[in-house]
Amino acid sequence: MSAAPLAVVLVSGGLDSMVAAGHAREAGFDILALSVDYNQRHQVELAAARRIARALEAERHVVLPLDLSAFGGSALTADIDVPKGGVGDDIPVTYVPARNTIFLSLALGWAEAAGARDLFIGVNALDYSGYPDCRPEFVAAFEGLAELATKAGVEGQPFKIHAPLQHMTKADIAREAARLGLDAGMSWSCYDPAPGGKHCGLCDSCRLRAKGFEEAGLPDPTVYATRP
Amino acid sequence: MSAAPLAVVLVSGGLDSMVAAGHAREAGFDILALSVDYNQRHQVELAAARRIARALEAERHVVLPLDLSAFGGSALTADIDVPKGGVGDDIPVTYVPARNTIFLSLALGWAEAAGARDLFIGVNALDYSGYPDCRPEFVAAFEGLAELATKAGVEGQPFKIHAPLQHMTKADIAREAARLGLDAGMSWSCYDPAPGGKHCGLCDSCRLRAKGFEEAGLPDPTVYATRP
Repeated sequence: MSAAPLAVVLVSGGLDSMVAAGHAREAGFDILALSVDYNQRHQVELAAARRIARALEAERHVVLPLDLSAFGGSALTADIDVPKGGVGDDIPVTYVPARNTIFLSLALGWAEAAGARDLFIGVNALDYSGYPDCRPEFVAAFEGLAELATKAGVEGQPFKIHAPLQHMTKADIAREAARLGLDAGMSWSCYDPAPGGKHCGLCDSCRLRAKGFEEAGLPDPTVYATRP
Repeated sequence: MSAAPLAVVLVSGGLDSMVAAGHAREAGFDILALSVDYNQRHQVELAAARRIARALEAERHVVLPLDLSAFGGSALTADIDVPKGGVGDDIPVTYVPARNTIFLSLALGWAEAAGARDLFIGVNALDYSGYPDCRPEFVAAFEGLAELATKAGVEGQPFKIHAPLQHMTKADIAREAARLGLDAGMSWSCYDPAPGGKHCGLCDSCRLRAKGFEEAGLPDPTVYATRP
């Protein structure tokens, strides 16, 4: 056992969760990295999650199988095309119903079992796809729920949900990766991977990623099939 | 597709969730039954869940594998003995960290994907083991979270979390089963099954079950290895 306090960090394999994990380490936590194999179209992100957990010397990395395609309802878990026309104003079909609620619940379960009181999630609500469960009010409500839901909370040891990227743009996040010495090339963002292990370049997630590096004036290590 | 509105019902296989499912049907819903195979010690409850889903003519029954023993921290998912000394005042080691938060999150995901706006859960906070995530304040907080967390909620179509057993005693629940014409013998409560497919008779869950039938003055169809 390590002497540092533990934090459960949701590590999808994307740029945002990589930076959130970097913040957890910078804050002095040892990392329990949690990834979910939810039968997502871009399962390749789990290889990125493994690279990130290793680079951040996670105490443990659990890749939990949970087949959300049993429910469907999203372009990431059902046979629905991933939109490629650019980031719009509406919540897009890549939204996975209740995904962050499910993921934070799992992180909460692990945290309580492991004696951790801190959870990290890499949501941000500026350069994002408009998913409701990325907004600050969602994160705050989950923290309140966690206190009521758990033995630890009831016994006066509530959980803190850290969302350190909450008010950052994608450019800020790209800069943070560089500042923390994390190679952004480890991470994976694309929803609809192109042949040859390339990012498609056209889905919302690719467009936001490319825009972030460009606006930050930083080199983008990503190989895109089509330049966004 | 059926014409009746759909409700996602968490069906563990126990007496409480059986009666909650009966309430859902009585209220006119077609049932999407959700059970979780979380590597629980009493996995036999899933056979009971299947009997119940069939008896209530569920539109669909999903038994979702989700191995919570990856996290441990409970007598139901780790190598910790199930207490047999009687129901105490403290939250017992059979508490599974964040279990109902996880289960309701999954139910929420399915509900949103299926266009359902109603969820049923069989929690009650009178004759229970003191689990924090069985209390009315938890259920109310989850309903609030669900509104913030989802596309449907944001678009003004929030979810209703029904907990029809919330203020019932176990005797009330045993009576409800009879009133609804549901054979309590279909259900399974025991945390630590005895050989020969018997309820152990000594765990909290067996004791509460037996007490319910006794106080209701109803025949208890359960075969206990040791009479509670």
